[in-house]
Amino acid sequence: MGKKYVYLFSEGNADMRELLGGKGANLAEMTNIGLPVPQGFTITTEACNRYYADGQQIAPEIEEEIFTYLRKLEEITGKKLGNKENPLLVSVRSGARASMPGMMDTILNLGINEDVVEVMARKSNNPRWAWDCYRRFIQMYSDVVMEVGKGYFEELIAEAKARKGVKLDTELTAEDLKELAFAFKAEYKEKVGSDFPTDPNEQLMGAVKAVFRSWNNARAIAYRRMNDIPADWGTAVNVQMMVFGNMGDDCGTGVAFSRDPATGENTLYGEFLMNAQGEDVVAGVRTPQTIDQLHETNPVAYEQFAKCAKDLEKHYKDLQDMEFTIENSKLYMLQCRNGKRTAFAALKIAVDMVEEGLCTREEAILKIEPNQLNSLLHPQFDPAALREAVPVANGLAASPGAACGGVYFTSESARDAAAHGPVLLVRNETTTEDIEGMAASQGILTATGGRTSHAAVVARGMGTCCVSGCAAVRINEKEKYLTVGGVRVNEGEFMSIDGSTGNVYVGKLPTVDATVSGDFATVMAWADEIRTLGVCANADTPRDAARALELGAEGIGLTRTEHMFFDLDRIPVMRRMILSDTEEQRREALAQLLPMQRGDFEGIFKAMGGRPVTIRLLDPPLHEFLPTTTGEMELLARDMGKTLAEIEDRCKALHETNPMMGHRGCRLPVTYPEIAEMQAQAIIEAAINVNAECGYSIVPQIMIPLVCEVRELRYVKNIVTATADKVIAQRGATLRYEVGTMIEIPRAALMADAIAEEAEFFSFGTNDLTQMTFGFSRDDAAKFLPSYYEKNIFEQDPFEKLDQSGVGQLVEMAARKGRATRPNIHMGICGEHGGEPSSVEFCHRVGLDYVSCSPFRVPIARLAAAQAAVKNR
Amino acid sequence: MGKKYVYLFSEGNADMRELLGGKGANLAEMTNIGLPVPQGFTITTEACNRYYADGQQIAPEIEEEIFTYLRKLEEITGKKLGNKENPLLVSVRSGARASMPGMMDTILNLGINEDVVEVMARKSNNPRWAWDCYRRFIQMYSDVVMEVGKGYFEELIAEAKARKGVKLDTELTAEDLKELAFAFKAEYKEKVGSDFPTDPNEQLMGAVKAVFRSWNNARAIAYRRMNDIPADWGTAVNVQMMVFGNMGDDCGTGVAFSRDPATGENTLYGEFLMNAQGEDVVAGVRTPQTIDQLHETNPVAYEQFAKCAKDLEKHYKDLQDMEFTIENSKLYMLQCRNGKRTAFAALKIAVDMVEEGLCTREEAILKIEPNQLNSLLHPQFDPAALREAVPVANGLAASPGAACGGVYFTSESARDAAAHGPVLLVRNETTTEDIEGMAASQGILTATGGRTSHAAVVARGMGTCCVSGCAAVRINEKEKYLTVGGVRVNEGEFMSIDGSTGNVYVGKLPTVDATVSGDFATVMAWADEIRTLGVCANADTPRDAARALELGAEGIGLTRTEHMFFDLDRIPVMRRMILSDTEEQRREALAQLLPMQRGDFEGIFKAMGGRPVTIRLLDPPLHEFLPTTTGEMELLARDMGKTLAEIEDRCKALHETNPMMGHRGCRLPVTYPEIAEMQAQAIIEAAINVNAECGYSIVPQIMIPLVCEVRELRYVKNIVTATADKVIAQRGATLRYEVGTMIEIPRAALMADAIAEEAEFFSFGTNDLTQMTFGFSRDDAAKFLPSYYEKNIFEQDPFEKLDQSGVGQLVEMAARKGRATRPNIHMGICGEHGGEPSSVEFCHRVGLDYVSCSPFRVPIARLAAAQAAVKNR
Repeated sequence: MGKKYVYLFSEGNADMRELLGGKGANLAEMTNIGLPVPQGFTITTEACNRYYADGQQIAPEIEEEIFTYLRKLEEITGKKLGNKENPLLVSVRSGARASMPGMMDTILNLGINEDVVEVMARKSNNPRWAWDCYRRFIQMYSDVVMEVGKGYFEELIAEAKARKGVKLDTELTAEDLKELAFAFKAEYKEKVGSDFPTDPNEQLMGAVKAVFRSWNNARAIAYRRMNDIPADWGTAVNVQMMVFGNMGDDCGTGVAFSRDPATGENTLYGEFLMNAQGEDVVAGVRTPQTIDQLHETNPVAYEQFAKCAKDLEKHYKDLQDMEFTIENSKLYMLQCRNGKRTAFAALKIAVDMVEEGLCTREEAILKIEPNQLNSLLHPQFDPAALREAVPVANGLAASPGAACGGVYFTSESARDAAAHGPVLLVRNETTTEDIEGMAASQGILTATGGRTSHAAVVARGMGTCCVSGCAAVRINEKEKYLTVGGVRVNEGEFMSIDGSTGNVYVGKLPTVDATVSGDFATVMAWADEIRTLGVCANADTPRDAARALELGAEGIGLTRTEHMFFDLDRIPVMRRMILSDTEEQRREALAQLLPMQRGDFEGIFKAMGGRPVTIRLLDPPLHEFLPTTTGEMELLARDMGKTLAEIEDRCKALHETNPMMGHRGCRLPVTYPEIAEMQAQAIIEAAINVNAECGYSIVPQIMIPLVCEVRELRYVKNIVTATADKVIAQRGATLRYEVGTMIEIPRAALMADAIAEEAEFFSFGTNDLTQMTFGFSRDDAAKFLPSYYEKNIFEQDPFEKLDQSGVGQLVEMAARKGRATRPNIHMGICGEHGGEPSSVEFCHRVGLDYVSCSPFRVPIARLAAAQAAVKNR
Repeated sequence: MGKKYVYLFSEGNADMRELLGGKGANLAEMTNIGLPVPQGFTITTEACNRYYADGQQIAPEIEEEIFTYLRKLEEITGKKLGNKENPLLVSVRSGARASMPGMMDTILNLGINEDVVEVMARKSNNPRWAWDCYRRFIQMYSDVVMEVGKGYFEELIAEAKARKGVKLDTELTAEDLKELAFAFKAEYKEKVGSDFPTDPNEQLMGAVKAVFRSWNNARAIAYRRMNDIPADWGTAVNVQMMVFGNMGDDCGTGVAFSRDPATGENTLYGEFLMNAQGEDVVAGVRTPQTIDQLHETNPVAYEQFAKCAKDLEKHYKDLQDMEFTIENSKLYMLQCRNGKRTAFAALKIAVDMVEEGLCTREEAILKIEPNQLNSLLHPQFDPAALREAVPVANGLAASPGAACGGVYFTSESARDAAAHGPVLLVRNETTTEDIEGMAASQGILTATGGRTSHAAVVARGMGTCCVSGCAAVRINEKEKYLTVGGVRVNEGEFMSIDGSTGNVYVGKLPTVDATVSGDFATVMAWADEIRTLGVCANADTPRDAARALELGAEGIGLTRTEHMFFDLDRIPVMRRMILSDTEEQRREALAQLLPMQRGDFEGIFKAMGGRPVTIRLLDPPLHEFLPTTTGEMELLARDMGKTLAEIEDRCKALHETNPMMGHRGCRLPVTYPEIAEMQAQAIIEAAINVNAECGYSIVPQIMIPLVCEVRELRYVKNIVTATADKVIAQRGATLRYEVGTMIEIPRAALMADAIAEEAEFFSFGTNDLTQMTFGFSRDDAAKFLPSYYEKNIFEQDPFEKLDQSGVGQLVEMAARKGRATRPNIHMGICGEHGGEPSSVEFCHRVGLDYVSCSPFRVPIARLAAAQAAVKNR
């Protein structure tokens, strides 16, 4: 027997979502629990995939199966498609596994033709309704199946209303609608070149194909990418007996939620229209009424609906989003699904439902989308002000939050101005040299660069609002102004940016601080109880560390030491160190940097109150620290007693073709061991000092980056341990410390068994690991990745969500090999993926000990980790 | 029972080379087959590794074992170390698994002290000999064990000779030598601060430690790296009873080969010195005699030696390199090993030995070092002229051969001048734009860039001689001259470069063409019979293809299509294509390129006479084709009807931070499908044309580079097949073609099972795979790799020899996964590793179908493949 491609509603259930789509599965479930659902059948997602595999054809055996089920539906309903006595009309609607509202197509009233419409008019004694159904069907079918477009028909309706001098569609008479139907058919013939199909079977197959086709329309592809829905899921098609909201004033149609999806309040929320069909609610010509008004209009239907809503909530243990139709005062449920909600509502609903005994804590936390918490953690624009404001441009929503401040075009000017008021740093793109200005700013706006550009990555790390790649902004740095959308904004004048939408405004928009209700704390406490995966933060400063702690981090998984050298008082010393001719000169400069580094580490150790801190040795290529302007080079030349030409030559010699794969990471101490010596000394001294001062027993974790070979790690580790042991002995202190490595180069993952001989811990640097496993330079991939999304090659940005099938193999392999060598090795992830929910779940599954992410993503990671624990129990 | 660390010669054999080192194993083998070997024992390589593991200490149990074996040796010889009646003297010599001649240390005459020397003088009645032994021992021990240096002692000898008015050491009397011995001891005490050790046991342990220590001296490390000898092999130590070549005129010592190692002729070849110890032969103060003169000097010893040589050749089935000593006319064999030989000799000896019935063809081909063939495949300088010539500078030996020509400093001028005579292209470094000039030149000389720089890689591919990274060369391109070593050379004046040594000469040095004797052809024919691995070539032009065929390639494994676009008549069209604003403009430019590409492919198909040809679609980032000078940009602007600023902007926009991981390979046709369409059309049309014209049945292999995901491959493959099928249909032709992919990104290897669903073949691009697996940019790694060798982190350049433990895992995994999906998939390697013997063996072992390498390495790969087949039978 072949595969079954069609299911009656009564054959399915809610667990069959993959096969029947969300809508189909829920229609089946509602049927099973006895709710009033007009019956029908579902054509599976597998039929959709077959359709594409067969070159956009429906195979004959599937077509046959569809008609077999149509006959069954006719038996159930006692009506027949195209029959002149008792005609069946059906709706044909898409239904993917994941909800994709409005992305795909729907056809109502299918099965109607000139014979049927007459029967309907006669039997209902309501010719206006019958002709309304017919003209609606012609309109929808033409648009959806034949892709004629809606515009022509809308014009015809407008003309008809103008001729009659009426405003609303409902004011048109049966005769008007009949005329319109004929006009529509003529229009169809002109556009398509053949008569409008009268055979209901032909109509049905055309509609099914159109729904399958709509799975790959442009807006569906875009929606899938934004919501990480794989292209190979396909959509199901639901064929359902029509019930009519447009038969008169005891009829209507509506959409409602079982609770308020904005606030979470436990009260029905939605709207409806009497004497209307589905699309009228959305079209906005008539203003719908709110759902409580239904109580007055039709109390019986209201009570039926309210009971259905409660029953469904109890059944699904979640907020329900429902569609219904009232036909002659009788309620029919057309759809239900778990409702989308704001972060605020999500938290309240979760806490309320647990209190109401509707679900357990474990069930409740699964209902909150972790990424949504983001919006609760950053300031936002005052909604009232936002309604009035018109953006002048739109860039990429690179780091969430809202910011308003005077614009400055250099890191220095931003830093200086920040003493006097809020500041926005506006640059074509930022570099590591801009760190100070970025840290001093309320928000960062760049003209170029993607969501993974330097500005975006650093801003997210800092929790600072950022809009990147806003090409409309043109900066004249020399004359200190920018133009955007025809407006000139001078240095110091105010602009506002929204890092959650990418919108850019000229002028001041007031912001409101994030409010975190008690529900938030409650949910986080549950998450911490449930999760087994640790959550740490990436933090480079005491300020970041303190924020991480506030947001629930258990330690610091990554402290980058490079940002520390960009301060104005440090960068000249750093540059002298880099351009030294001899080891002796280099050691002199390093000796000057030592107390500064020690101070940095003391600050972080104190901020973390004795919790674990992992510090990574210097990672970026040295040339990132070098001056780029002639002025800076001249200064440095004077400082070092060299000629400008000598400095220029050295800077040029340090240039690299592919700096990402160049002289950086542990390759630096292999050539210049004294750099690692200084850093090890600073870390160990800081730990000894803070332990002594505060009575902590910090065990610093020293992390060696970019290792590809165990002997390389051993060489650098020996430098670190020799220095550390010497310092400990000199100070007469007792201090335990650990030396571990980043696993961020494919070869390190492949050789993890050998590397674990030396490494006491692994930290997966999935940013670099992703770059090298894919061969994608993060800085350059923005040029071609859009084509990859458009062409369905990639559904997600591998820099945002960990590529579990490719990069994940390396992570899993390294974890396995590492443990084989050193069973008690501890492992975490410190790439940006550490705060992304699906990646957090992956880390839980492969048995890592912790994830580490930017402080503002810590609550997200805590929730995601708890969800992972529940899902993988 | 513990591990055994010491073996008598009679306990070992030739197969114990890993444990006993080459020298020890061969001494044992010679002992076993009854040759006259002074007896002794070998301390194993494992003892050396223990020494390093124990922090450069010899463990007490090993020391004890050494003395146990010393006692056994004393029993065998009937002499005793330090004994005043019958003293035993021993030599202490290193002996690694692989021969490392002169790299480590040797001490002779150990066991001597003031008492023993008197006994020796008395018993031998030869005080001169006794004191000569003593002064030699003091000198060697001071140098080797205490690292005092030889210079002081040499001065003392020189002074003594001057005082006596004699020239040769042999003219010094017993009394002179005694004085010298005391002077040496005084010198020792001054330098070391303590008396010279008189206890023979102490001397022995000091010498053993010194030999272990010498495993890690600078020259040993450098030698290991050049010869790919792992640091963890360690060295054994041989302690052997002394026999004396310095006891009088019926004594002597010598070194000889069983055949001529330069020509391969079957005649003893070597030299000896009467009344001398080993180091005198090397020292060059007295001129040694040739081995046939021994026939006259001491016919008995000569006959003994000639017989030993034949016996050893028969036993080892290979050319022998032997050390011997004659003591009172009796021959002693001190060492034998398989001899190093020239490529020419290697071939002749292999063929002769098979003819002589000494060994089989399989055994014979194992005796030829494949890399040596290189020297037979390129022109060389006339040896006579070379003896006179003095190099002015030395760069890196980047591509073998010798070249002489007028110097030119730009690709254009070199190309133009090449019409009138031989040319050398001299550049700071070359880029893809220099291809034409490089192709027109006899040789290439660059001031910067390593052995894997663009110049080096391309030159090797072309088989053109290249010296790279010759820092002494300073080019003034504008004024058209260079200076090197104080000499100025103007454009057009002659220089000569030797790509096999890196030497650079001013002026003309005559070259001689490579001569390939009949033996070469014989050996290659044997190799082809034996090997199972296919050997193809990388070739981009009909000329290269023809050369590849001559050298035995079975097909083309890689045709790069990018070099084809650098010709003067093509690059403007290519640039217009790249800078097009619309697809239409791009298609116009591509239409112009189409006939050129088709012509290229027709040429290659014809040159290959119907053999398989794999063509890779465009691979490099587009900006590599763009103009770099303002002049060129202006030309292009005029050509395209744009402003200079527009062209500059577009070129700037195409700049990438890490171009190696940027917008290139299959990422180009994902964004611009029309490029792949043009190339597919050109390939298919060319194949149809050549098949029709020549009656071939070429099956073109179209290769899609830089794939990381099956859907990416599918997308580009669909473009290729749609185009190909259309062309075939339009032409009414029958043509089979295959579409495959490069596996050169780590993720492609990880996902090879999925990728094989679409790929009909895999070609491992191990150059890029190595870059991304290690995270090493080839262009930048030269900055830090020297530190890696120096610090024993790497022993080999992973771009030269395939990293079997890391990158190899990916190759093996991809091969396995690919076959699981598509059992008949064919696979090869087309990185530069394809012509490197150890990598070829790896490819054989993991079951690839073929290797592909530059034409000049084809014979090397054929031999290496045959050796792999024999070794892995």
